[in-house]
Amino acid sequence: MKTPQDMIPVAVLGATGMVGEQLLALLAHHPWFRVVEVAASDRSAGQRLGARLGAAGRALPSSIVEVTLKSLDDAFEAPLVLSALPADRALEVEARLAGAGHLVVSNASAFRADAQVPLLVPDVNPQHLDLLDAQRTRWGGGSGGIITNPNCSVAGLVVALAPLHQAFGLRSVVVTTLQAISGAGRPGPAAGDLVDNIIPFIGNEEDKVEREPRKILGGLVDGAIVGADFTVSATCTRVPVLHGHTASVSVAFQHDAKPQEVVQVLRDFASPLTGLGLPTMPRPSIEVLDDEDRPQPRLDRDLGNGMTVSVGRIRRCSVQHASFVVLSHNLIRGAAGAALLNAELAVARGWLAR
Amino acid sequence: MKTPQDMIPVAVLGATGMVGEQLLALLAHHPWFRVVEVAASDRSAGQRLGARLGAAGRALPSSIVEVTLKSLDDAFEAPLVLSALPADRALEVEARLAGAGHLVVSNASAFRADAQVPLLVPDVNPQHLDLLDAQRTRWGGGSGGIITNPNCSVAGLVVALAPLHQAFGLRSVVVTTLQAISGAGRPGPAAGDLVDNIIPFIGNEEDKVEREPRKILGGLVDGAIVGADFTVSATCTRVPVLHGHTASVSVAFQHDAKPQEVVQVLRDFASPLTGLGLPTMPRPSIEVLDDEDRPQPRLDRDLGNGMTVSVGRIRRCSVQHASFVVLSHNLIRGAAGAALLNAELAVARGWLAR
Amino acid sequence: MKTPQDMIPVAVLGATGMVGEQLLALLAHHPWFRVVEVAASDRSAGQRLGARLGAAGRALPSSIVEVTLKSLDDAFEAPLVLSALPADRALEVEARLAGAGHLVVSNASAFRADAQVPLLVPDVNPQHLDLLDAQRTRWGGGSGGIITNPNCSVAGLVVALAPLHQAFGLRSVVVTTLQAISGAGRPGPAAGDLVDNIIPFIGNEEDKVEREPRKILGGLVDGAIVGADFTVSATCTRVPVLHGHTASVSVAFQHDAKPQEVVQVLRDFASPLTGLGLPTMPRPSIEVLDDEDRPQPRLDRDLGNGMTVSVGRIRRCSVQHASFVVLSHNLIRGAAGAALLNAELAVARGWLAR
Amino acid sequence: MKTPQDMIPVAVLGATGMVGEQLLALLAHHPWFRVVEVAASDRSAGQRLGARLGAAGRALPSSIVEVTLKSLDDAFEAPLVLSALPADRALEVEARLAGAGHLVVSNASAFRADAQVPLLVPDVNPQHLDLLDAQRTRWGGGSGGIITNPNCSVAGLVVALAPLHQAFGLRSVVVTTLQAISGAGRPGPAAGDLVDNIIPFIGNEEDKVEREPRKILGGLVDGAIVGADFTVSATCTRVPVLHGHTASVSVAFQHDAKPQEVVQVLRDFASPLTGLGLPTMPRPSIEVLDDEDRPQPRLDRDLGNGMTVSVGRIRRCSVQHASFVVLSHNLIRGAAGAALLNAELAVARGWLAR
Repeated sequence: MKTPQDMIPVAVLGATGMVGEQLLALLAHHPWFRVVEVAASDRSAGQRLGARLGAAGRALPSSIVEVTLKSLDDAFEAPLVLSALPADRALEVEARLAGAGHLVVSNASAFRADAQVPLLVPDVNPQHLDLLDAQRTRWGGGSGGIITNPNCSVAGLVVALAPLHQAFGLRSVVVTTLQAISGAGRPGPAAGDLVDNIIPFIGNEEDKVEREPRKILGGLVDGAIVGADFTVSATCTRVPVLHGHTASVSVAFQHDAKPQEVVQVLRDFASPLTGLGLPTMPRPSIEVLDDEDRPQPRLDRDLGNGMTVSVGRIRRCSVQHASFVVLSHNLIRGAAGAALLNAELAVARGWLAR
Repeated sequence: MKTPQDMIPVAVLGATGMVGEQLLALLAHHPWFRVVEVAASDRSAGQRLGARLGAAGRALPSSIVEVTLKSLDDAFEAPLVLSALPADRALEVEARLAGAGHLVVSNASAFRADAQVPLLVPDVNPQHLDLLDAQRTRWGGGSGGIITNPNCSVAGLVVALAPLHQAFGLRSVVVTTLQAISGAGRPGPAAGDLVDNIIPFIGNEEDKVEREPRKILGGLVDGAIVGADFTVSATCTRVPVLHGHTASVSVAFQHDAKPQEVVQVLRDFASPLTGLGLPTMPRPSIEVLDDEDRPQPRLDRDLGNGMTVSVGRIRRCSVQHASFVVLSHNLIRGAAGAALLNAELAVARGWLAR
Repeated sequence: MKTPQDMIPVAVLGATGMVGEQLLALLAHHPWFRVVEVAASDRSAGQRLGARLGAAGRALPSSIVEVTLKSLDDAFEAPLVLSALPADRALEVEARLAGAGHLVVSNASAFRADAQVPLLVPDVNPQHLDLLDAQRTRWGGGSGGIITNPNCSVAGLVVALAPLHQAFGLRSVVVTTLQAISGAGRPGPAAGDLVDNIIPFIGNEEDKVEREPRKILGGLVDGAIVGADFTVSATCTRVPVLHGHTASVSVAFQHDAKPQEVVQVLRDFASPLTGLGLPTMPRPSIEVLDDEDRPQPRLDRDLGNGMTVSVGRIRRCSVQHASFVVLSHNLIRGAAGAALLNAELAVARGWLAR
Repeated sequence: MKTPQDMIPVAVLGATGMVGEQLLALLAHHPWFRVVEVAASDRSAGQRLGARLGAAGRALPSSIVEVTLKSLDDAFEAPLVLSALPADRALEVEARLAGAGHLVVSNASAFRADAQVPLLVPDVNPQHLDLLDAQRTRWGGGSGGIITNPNCSVAGLVVALAPLHQAFGLRSVVVTTLQAISGAGRPGPAAGDLVDNIIPFIGNEEDKVEREPRKILGGLVDGAIVGADFTVSATCTRVPVLHGHTASVSVAFQHDAKPQEVVQVLRDFASPLTGLGLPTMPRPSIEVLDDEDRPQPRLDRDLGNGMTVSVGRIRRCSVQHASFVVLSHNLIRGAAGAALLNAELAVARGWLAR
């Protein structure tokens, strides 16, 4: 553990939302990072952070809850900025801060499709971090840059797909998600809509699930991403679960693979992060569950402190090659933990100018 | 409305289960049928039916709840027997009653795969009823026979698939179901397993979803069913919904079809039951919903008194040809109403010897 | 059924909220009243009503959903105004409309505590309607006036308390409510707050539960209400139930009463509305349930079309005299049905100037 | 931490139930106790413990899940026996084991009302442990004895009542509980009964809530308990919450006390366990919450590792003197943790013959 003086100062944007609050919780005892600035919507500027947090957030250490919220229009001192802003604000604020020389690690969707911005999942495509080089002249700020993590329903899915793509070559993926309430942020769906009910639609979600995996699993060629050559069809539904997105997945490969081969490839997955000493490294990245009725959100979402992706029900698909069920914690592996791990990798690789 | 003397006496087997109780509710005011005998597990024989029913069942008319439960080993007088028995008891009891000359209309899975037994959905494959001819010598009882209806998660799905198969030729179907609690019968899942959770597995269900649609949509050739030539891949999950099975469906056709063509074919579906005067005829069989977040179980399961299948979110599938969401009431369209409609069609067609 | 020309034109204020929508549903087939004007918040003025309703509301007859929303600042033609406005708007709008000669039947809390305004539950205190006389000069509009119904958690409670107060004299009441989600209006509590949780507090609710029963059960003396002489202590909680407020009640009487006497008095309750022909009259007002685990919200809230108050678990209280559980449908008996019944009584008694 | 050889061997009876499994979880890393024998229903005897546990139990250390289940009729070697048996089996088995010289620390209700058996809550009535002396000749086994903990809905309530009784003298308590699903054990209520519903009745529960607090807060006079002189009236309901029993409480004192005095007495509560070094000691025993909408089950049940009782909404009661809401974790403070703390106190006081 470093002394406070040695720790890297970070700013958290969108600190009062559900992802922001989860970020603060993960940062409360982080060995490398120290929260020094927080900001949220402009109307909260000037208030104590604690006054704007939910019940869980108010229980954070006083070194965090007593910080005064800045305006998003302010200048920030922390070299590292973690952003949980909504997409529309992110577009402007994150570009400005990158231009001011900050390394912005964002959970927002604003720049995810940008060809020069890495859509990074460190145990899947760590080499995409080199895209930061392509940003050098982009924002006009020298050392600044933007890194993004995927949508919360893509984050777990792509971890399961990555070793399969490498081993067998993905051709197509048909996925139906059963997504948790917390994925919708605050205040999220009304209770009256999710008692004795599910909602078979989530706005703008299916498009992300169909696009983002191809960029993440794509190749880095001449400083740009060439998307992987497979298709994804997604149906996204909301279910009365607090945390943990479940995905029912069917895949076709370039070359057929038996269920036991799929199991073996997932079990044998070796994280490229091993040995780097990243505090938030998933341990393990993938857990294959044998029980026929797993993974279940409440039982399995917290595996590996919420960073482990669990996969179960691996079997032959009658239409494509294989079917399985993937579960991951949408707020941790799918959002706050994802951004934090991205920041850790970037720091470890020396991308943070101090 | 016929006078009681004119009404057809029916026996209900498995009367105290969830499907049996729903059958009794539908029969309580039925214009053709009159409940005269009820039976359930042998240990309940001799008791008042009302003493063994759940809260909803106890509110049925006294002409029903005051009937004394018979043993399944007893002889029955009613020519028409509606069975909601568990599969293992159904195998023996239904065969015996068919042999004794009864027309047995069953919700059980015991004989669904039997080549001589119609797996009947009257607005989809009414011609399969002619299979009863093939049973004439089977049970040794002259006029007796067995008719079955599909699994509760197949019943709605196949109604949506039927007109598409006719118009475009199904090649493959990938389906993920989000099934209601009542589909699991009594007592069903424990409350502790379905608060803040879903269960991504239902025992023996996926196999039924993969097989039954091919028989239902198959042809009747020389007194036997030739299964339709497409494949189905199913993942079945349980969600915290009381009634109403939702299915997320992706289909590939022999010939491509645009989403608006799929919409048109479903909207144009003309029920073969029109004009037959069946009391339980779905009105309509299919309802296409335009709102992007429908169908939803609580809002749409009761359409057409629980017999209408609602379809929404019809759109292009990136992997196959089309995607959509199907919803139907599992206890009515998927079980009790399905059996009742089967009985009505058989009576209208003159299959009931009196 | 009257012809449309004979029907009384009504205006519905706050038509797009949860109570307003329930009012429209009850009015859709009402034999006396015909909806001719609707209004909601000012920003919805000028829109089709149907465009602002929830899923259930959009399924109402086109004669209702096609009406154009007026502004609350507009003049209204209908002599009878049903108001489901929020309290703050109600204060100004209802007074103005009473001043313009309308009979305003309101579900809002704005005037409930007003000494000249009847807090009316027709099967409990119909005589309080005479308070309208005291309002003659109040609003400056001649025949106009305001009638209110109680808070949704008081509406059922007071029906159960009324015959007990008459028979034994209430001295004190300790009540804990378990209230449904729909009682909170739109959008109501967030789903994330009511999965695996209850909330032991409802803002401003306990005060109403402690005050309103005393006014309703009070006497009308010289044109003013003298509140009944008992005390109520309330704790109000929110539970994950869609509709139906449950109350756990302990009462002390002026004179002790055995549980079987309490049962008898509740069973013997004779509605003062019998014979008046009011379409929404509760049939019956009170249903005493014998099963030890009743009333339950989902099983009993719809008794008597949602107007019947069910009472169960009547037993000796170790501290006071008797304990029992009361259930009523918060949107019907507790709000929309309550207002409608008030309007019907007022019309039957000739208070509506036409 | 002691070495394994120094640790006290314990046997766990009823190990496969919900409370038994929680006990095993708490014992898995206990610094004093080591599980050496487990037993459950006789039909499970001879099986691996792990084969009979739920999902959470199967994740326990192999030193526990690999133990073979004994029969309840067997002899046990461990001097300390922790029992989570159902009441009917407990009556016979616990008496026999006490007779064989074991110290039996039981969660069962069988002996709770027994005048010679302590109904122990260590931070409330530790002096009642001396009742073990009165048992010396009772079971015929020399050093054996039985200690019980209260019902899960009493365990938290009595911790909040104890300091108030000491300060102001309780006269009467009216309580309505909103109890969690896990309090009903396995399999517990059916999911279909607790979606969109609450159940206003729990069999045999109210009697325990009305009796047990009087024994716990009673005095030890001449080797017997003299029950405290106040009355309790209870209504117990089941709500769709996984863990955490909430109680809405109204109390009358011998001497009036203002809300702020009640707050002060609860905040000032000094645990008699301080300094004893018991591993499961609640830290703190009572947490007074200021937010008006707390305690909430999901947010507060895990305070103090599930051993802290949280109290909120302290205010004047219009009928009695004070009202408040109490929450405690039913499986930990209300069952497994309660028994464990009882065992720790007994060991610390030297009651365990080795």
